[in-house]
Amino acid sequence: MMSSEYLPGLAGVPATKSNISSIDGEKGVLAYRGYDIRELAEKSTFEETALLLLDGCLPTASELAEFDRQLKAERPVKYKIRSIMKNLPSSGDPMEMLQTAVASLGMFYGGEEVLSDGITGNDVEYIHSMSVKIISRMATIVAMWEHIRNGYDPIKPRYDLTHAEHFLYMLDGKDPDPLKVRIMDACLVLHAEHTINASTFAAMVCGSTLASPFLVIAAAIGTLAGPLHGGANQRVVEMLKEIGRPENVQSWLDNKLAKKEVIWGMGHREYKTKDPRAIVLQKMMVEWGEAQGTLSPMFETALKLEEACEVALGPKGVYPNVDYYSGILYTEMGIASDQFTPIFALSRVAGWLAHWREQLSDNRIFRPTQIYTGNEHLKYIEIEQR
Amino acid sequence: MMSSEYLPGLAGVPATKSNISSIDGEKGVLAYRGYDIRELAEKSTFEETALLLLDGCLPTASELAEFDRQLKAERPVKYKIRSIMKNLPSSGDPMEMLQTAVASLGMFYGGEEVLSDGITGNDVEYIHSMSVKIISRMATIVAMWEHIRNGYDPIKPRYDLTHAEHFLYMLDGKDPDPLKVRIMDACLVLHAEHTINASTFAAMVCGSTLASPFLVIAAAIGTLAGPLHGGANQRVVEMLKEIGRPENVQSWLDNKLAKKEVIWGMGHREYKTKDPRAIVLQKMMVEWGEAQGTLSPMFETALKLEEACEVALGPKGVYPNVDYYSGILYTEMGIASDQFTPIFALSRVAGWLAHWREQLSDNRIFRPTQIYTGNEHLKYIEIEQR
Repeated sequence: MMSSEYLPGLAGVPATKSNISSIDGEKGVLAYRGYDIRELAEKSTFEETALLLLDGCLPTASELAEFDRQLKAERPVKYKIRSIMKNLPSSGDPMEMLQTAVASLGMFYGGEEVLSDGITGNDVEYIHSMSVKIISRMATIVAMWEHIRNGYDPIKPRYDLTHAEHFLYMLDGKDPDPLKVRIMDACLVLHAEHTINASTFAAMVCGSTLASPFLVIAAAIGTLAGPLHGGANQRVVEMLKEIGRPENVQSWLDNKLAKKEVIWGMGHREYKTKDPRAIVLQKMMVEWGEAQGTLSPMFETALKLEEACEVALGPKGVYPNVDYYSGILYTEMGIASDQFTPIFALSRVAGWLAHWREQLSDNRIFRPTQIYTGNEHLKYIEIEQR
Repeated sequence: MMSSEYLPGLAGVPATKSNISSIDGEKGVLAYRGYDIRELAEKSTFEETALLLLDGCLPTASELAEFDRQLKAERPVKYKIRSIMKNLPSSGDPMEMLQTAVASLGMFYGGEEVLSDGITGNDVEYIHSMSVKIISRMATIVAMWEHIRNGYDPIKPRYDLTHAEHFLYMLDGKDPDPLKVRIMDACLVLHAEHTINASTFAAMVCGSTLASPFLVIAAAIGTLAGPLHGGANQRVVEMLKEIGRPENVQSWLDNKLAKKEVIWGMGHREYKTKDPRAIVLQKMMVEWGEAQGTLSPMFETALKLEEACEVALGPKGVYPNVDYYSGILYTEMGIASDQFTPIFALSRVAGWLAHWREQLSDNRIFRPTQIYTGNEHLKYIEIEQR
């Protein structure tokens, strides 16, 4: 039965055949369905990228318009789900809120559909309609929570804004600044997919039992929430706050490096060169800085730390990654740091759903084996004799 | 990087070293921490078995008494969680209710604790206290839902009953029949753990990111909910309803076998002989039948089908499994069939938590790889040109 050696974390063990995304760690290239994400971040939108991930090819103008119409139509969230959210403690982790809310959506929209092995025509329709419901509502839910946890009613959805615009509008209640929108849209494109990481894998494992997509996405959200996975950009901001001011950077960094401690947002297991997503965001950070005229101390600290790290770590192949810049950009946009991972989730859901669909198209339930290291043949001892 | 061949569903691929449970498929033995489950089902209780799974050894009388006290103390569920449940549609899938409710618990009890790699003394305390909170409340929540979805307030918890007694009491509102209690307790013991199946594996993947236990158990619940995993005992009952009466069994079975269709509750991938859990439950089914005096048509149909299957499938090594008997027993106890998988979950949670703890004790984040089969180096095409 056992045919492979044991590799902790299944590192290097192929768990699937996939045609959704690929990473070239040597060259620093991430591509979705064959398209370089640097090009997508510049030319595409989250809506188009999501459809590319779900369906496998760039949509025509009319396909995209239809998807956009569907996403907009699913923006409202039922008042009972709002009531559920209002019953959650305001101090709780927003990722747990998101997992709760998405799990609850399944009860409202799950229906009786059961997917069989092998996707038929009807299944594709079902998968698509569930994907629309989930992608659209996750953005609404994350934005709603910002108001609910502060004691306010959420902003009512509108139907004239793009996905990124609308998310920022629901966060702020006002028409968002175009540069903010462009940055948020690029962030959503850049975070939408990244091969078989832990949360995507959890979605595949859950999906392989033919569980409903709400159950599947809730499992993935729970997995992304772990501090070893989705929480790094939040840590970057905490680190920058700890450093405090640009003039503290060098001594702080020297001290950290001497103690061999983690510099959050630096380096990535998959890339030997600069994370391509970081390159895009770095450009946007400069643009944002120029547009603001005056820079915040955190922003200046971040720029300074980046320079210092380039000198100290660049020669070792350790560069800033996507988390470094996204955390700073979100902070500059006025977003609370515990909302960074939920924003990651509302983008990555496109990739999760693409992998869910791919899993169903050639499904086998995940049931790896174990190396048993425990006791054998013990005899039960009555409690009085223990 | 890639060091193993691709095996769909990771079948036969070791994903962990574990000392929690073992299956001998040839001899038909399932053991928890070295103890044969046939012995545990007869002599132990769910509380003791759960502690055995969590801590690794049979507890002393005072350890068990303390665990029992802790479980009882955690029975009440906050009224805000009750409000959340009341906002869920009564027609929804109880597994989605359970995932929602458990995810929400994290916001109330999650705290700020972050587990580091390698479990320290404080971590063991944290893990234990979270395990108690989850095990105790899951039973309360499943029972509460039966009342809430029917429009009634749930039964108030009591503190003088065992876990199995209390679950049945909260379902019915009356002191449960001792034979029912013994059967339910044995069912909870028998379902508590079963090596690395999909839901346990999902708990490990989620836990490997150091996500909170509520997120982890919610991911596992989502995975158990899939019809290829936890839902088989419900299907058994639907199948028996379809057959209708004992005299229809033989022609129904002949027809099914001729068409090579699934007989629910028959056969198990891990066992070449009779599922040891089924042996225990079969005895209880006979005892239950004798105690009732008169048998329900479903019960008679089930006995008849079992006999017919023994003749037709036994020589091929296909025997009734745990799902066959548990579904019938739960139905005889008056439990709604869509509650079977939630009952499975409130037992299996002991195993999930044991694997969560084991994962943390020697953690590496799960990140398998993929065989990329998609497009490469595509050039973005402007939408007008598509």
